Amino acid sequence: MSTARTDSERVELANTALYEAVERGDTVAMGRLWLDDPDTEVSCVHPGWPVLRGRGEVLRSYALIMASTDYIQFFLTDVEVSVAGDTALVTCTENILSGGPAEEEGELGPLVGQLVVATNVFRRVRGQWKVWSHHGSPVLAGREEEDGGDEEDDADGPGS
Amino acid sequence: MSTARTDSERVELANTALYEAVERGDTVAMGRLWLDDPDTEVSCVHPGWPVLRGRGEVLRSYALIMASTDYIQFFLTDVEVSVAGDTALVTCTENILSGGPAEEEGELGPLVGQLVVATNVFRRVRGQWKVWSHHGSPVLAGREEEDGGDEEDDADGPGS
Repeated sequence: MSTARTDSERVELANTALYEAVERGDTVAMGRLWLDDPDTEVSCVHPGWPVLRGRGEVLRSYALIMASTDYIQFFLTDVEVSVAGDTALVTCTENILSGGPAEEEGELGPLVGQLVVATNVFRRVRGQWKVWSHHGSPVLAGREEEDGGDEEDDADGPGS
Repeated sequence: MSTARTDSERVELANTALYEAVERGDTVAMGRLWLDDPDTEVSCVHPGWPVLRGRGEVLRSYALIMASTDYIQFFLTDVEVSVAGDTALVTCTENILSGGPAEEEGELGPLVGQLVVATNVFRRVRGQWKVWSHHGSPVLAGREEEDGGDEEDDADGPGS
């Protein structure tokens, strides 16, 4: 096969597919990408939201978000994949550009940039990596000044 | 043994232990509770922070938080555990009451309440559940009005 990939690469593709489905407003793809196992409940936290649990609640929240967003694009950066057995954990930064409906039909509303970090957990089911959990949260500016001050460089070191 | 427990109960104990270690400012316990496996990198997102990765960075962030907090207590509610093989996912609400140092020595600073939701991922290593990932984020008020309006009740239903 010319498409042989490592587990890590497959997980990253599944992670990318999740964001692409939101960009396209593709509710069918979302249903396919999320884990569907009665023994393993999925969960989701959108930035600033409480926890949503179960496929029904999670998929409906995405449908709501997609319905109220005319344009959304995710530029993923700092993507790190960690695989352990049949579970994988992805952390990444979502650089989001989105726009709501404009006043005039056919026009795009004002674009808004947003910086979100996400922890996405995947389970391998019959060779396919499915989303078990998504947790996104806003990165609030200025916290490094509060917590580290000029020790910021040190805080990035290896430490113990 | 009189302490026989289900996987789910053991995971919940490991989850509680994580918060209790922060309450006590116990850096040694934190080091013991977090996964220590060179092949599986840990990650952590504190509310409003970017992603931290690796034991050094994660444990140091907790040491910083604990050093700058005179008093912190977590009242965990809405705790849900989902176990799949050697991985477990816990979602919960952290009702946090904390206080910084006061102006006068021996006094407690003003107490602050905070509402945070968390997704915590655990790995079972030699029978012990260790923290692989913690992601906490602030619950921002008023989003239900924005997104659901008076359809809020419906959004809690089973759906599809």
